[in-house]
Amino acid sequence: MVTMRDVAQRAGVSIATVSFLLNDTKPVTAATRARIEQAMLDLGYKRNLVARALASRRTHIIAMAYPALEHRFGMSTSEFFTSAAEAARKADYHLVLWPVGNDGVELRELLGQGLVDGVVLMEVQLDDPRIDVLQGAKMPFALIGRTTEPAGLSHVDIDFDTTVEDAVRHLYSFGHRQLALISGDLDDPRFHAYGPWVRVEEAYRRVAASYDLPIVVVPCSDTTEAGKAATEQLLAQHPETTAVLVLNEYAALGVVSGLKRAGYDVPGDMSVLSLLMVPETAAMTDPELTMMRTPGPELGQLGTDSLIRELEGDDPLPPQLVPAKLSPGATVAAPRAPRPKADAGRRGARKARS
Amino acid sequence: MVTMRDVAQRAGVSIATVSFLLNDTKPVTAATRARIEQAMLDLGYKRNLVARALASRRTHIIAMAYPALEHRFGMSTSEFFTSAAEAARKADYHLVLWPVGNDGVELRELLGQGLVDGVVLMEVQLDDPRIDVLQGAKMPFALIGRTTEPAGLSHVDIDFDTTVEDAVRHLYSFGHRQLALISGDLDDPRFHAYGPWVRVEEAYRRVAASYDLPIVVVPCSDTTEAGKAATEQLLAQHPETTAVLVLNEYAALGVVSGLKRAGYDVPGDMSVLSLLMVPETAAMTDPELTMMRTPGPELGQLGTDSLIRELEGDDPLPPQLVPAKLSPGATVAAPRAPRPKADAGRRGARKARS
Repeated sequence: MVTMRDVAQRAGVSIATVSFLLNDTKPVTAATRARIEQAMLDLGYKRNLVARALASRRTHIIAMAYPALEHRFGMSTSEFFTSAAEAARKADYHLVLWPVGNDGVELRELLGQGLVDGVVLMEVQLDDPRIDVLQGAKMPFALIGRTTEPAGLSHVDIDFDTTVEDAVRHLYSFGHRQLALISGDLDDPRFHAYGPWVRVEEAYRRVAASYDLPIVVVPCSDTTEAGKAATEQLLAQHPETTAVLVLNEYAALGVVSGLKRAGYDVPGDMSVLSLLMVPETAAMTDPELTMMRTPGPELGQLGTDSLIRELEGDDPLPPQLVPAKLSPGATVAAPRAPRPKADAGRRGARKARS
Repeated sequence: MVTMRDVAQRAGVSIATVSFLLNDTKPVTAATRARIEQAMLDLGYKRNLVARALASRRTHIIAMAYPALEHRFGMSTSEFFTSAAEAARKADYHLVLWPVGNDGVELRELLGQGLVDGVVLMEVQLDDPRIDVLQGAKMPFALIGRTTEPAGLSHVDIDFDTTVEDAVRHLYSFGHRQLALISGDLDDPRFHAYGPWVRVEEAYRRVAASYDLPIVVVPCSDTTEAGKAATEQLLAQHPETTAVLVLNEYAALGVVSGLKRAGYDVPGDMSVLSLLMVPETAAMTDPELTMMRTPGPELGQLGTDSLIRELEGDDPLPPQLVPAKLSPGATVAAPRAPRPKADAGRRGARKARS
């Protein structure tokens, strides 16, 4: 370990002078200060010292770690972030956002600085290397999301099973028997093993099977353009579909546009139900989207509260799963009555009706 | 000033023991450590000491201060943030986001911790109290935005004058002579004296006057719903309008929806030009919006580079104003030829044409 003596020697000053500077007990000249700082930098001493000093203090700052360069920071994320910031503020903490990558490298660098009391981890992967980094640094943390085996980790997450069950039941109750899921694109390396996408797709397959419905999944990344393209693909490959579930919010906007471009009336010819969305985005389409409303405000607050309880030494909150709740818009209706085969094709059928 | 001696006295230990703990030069027992930490806390010594130690070090972390609880963190903001984070990363810095309020109170609290080397300030107000806070803390900073008198402050901003001139010229060149601006809502206290809104509205009034065009301004906050309402208001009060400029991106989505709901064809009956937008949002309407593309990627990078140059002791970058550039979509076309008065009303006129 580098000592104060090493620093003094390298800087060509006395140990007392180094001590004066570090403890701010006597003034040192700018030139001496610069020499000492350079020596600490060269030897890697400074960080060690300050990190230790910091480790003994509480900053009352917590970080939300979000991979902002890999995952879009959209309207839903914004809700998680602002509700977490509000929860922190109420508890007399500050929340800051760390746009660190999913691999844990930058997270480790930032943790080494000892700047925060704890971390709220977002966009959790099923096997998340950032958790090893946090545990290795002995940094308190809470997950918004969860790994494959989250037992023992402080976490809150969306209840994807209930969300998808409620969504399918809603469409089924309107009479739909030909459903499709426009899902996430798990081949995208940025979203590989991304919990929400994996869990929603699994839940859809399970629930559709339990209702004895055919299973149709179209992968799609979360952009309006991708939503349009996925819609084209769905209509070409599965023209029998009468209702579509869309996992991602910007894709859902593209699905509505894509259906209209293809000459489909929404919901007359096709019902659309957005699985994880916020009201502001739902209002962007005409007609307004029916959605399962993402519980961002609840989860941002719960995740932050969980962490702060740990920091304050209070009893931990149990892990919680919160479903997205149905929020009716105007994009779900009963399917049209089946047509005679002779009608040959949707466009013809619709023209015959109108 | 509280000294190490005061801490030692209060904790009932020797000065040497306090020094051992702070400098991590000899182990101290957990009980002693707790007593010393409590004494430092009681006397307000710890923060002072650590802050000074921190002041002498470089963290290589810079903060972007953004009022995330007052201003929406939308698609455009996301571009500023991610481009700033990338610019920081290239220069071997970390960028973190501080969601501090516009009044400077939280900013002061965070600065007191000495956690960052500098601050990039976003959503600048014409007379911004956060700048006094930064100057008072002797914290290096750069503005993305500018005050009324930005001379002497490191800043980059959108060139609103050129942006609005180019936008009006574009519509004028198509033959439009009845323009309107759906502006920001400056009565909203969260946006009081918010530079971009004030400057765009001023520029519109000036440019419209220079083209000898009537001046029509409808205030509107930045939501889809507000955009729909503002459109209703505009159509009721100024049915002669043939082209509308929209300041805010989510409002622009509502304007297109509102026009369609009112039975207007876009761009046949009304051209729409969004003044500050990103491609992803423009793609959300059908037809895709013609926009002045917000230079978020350029400004996020330039603002961050300016700050880092100052931190590294390099020559400062001069202040830069970057215009939003025209990005043609499909919502601008020539106005329909004037109709005889007898046609009485837009809907009638359109039906007659189709």
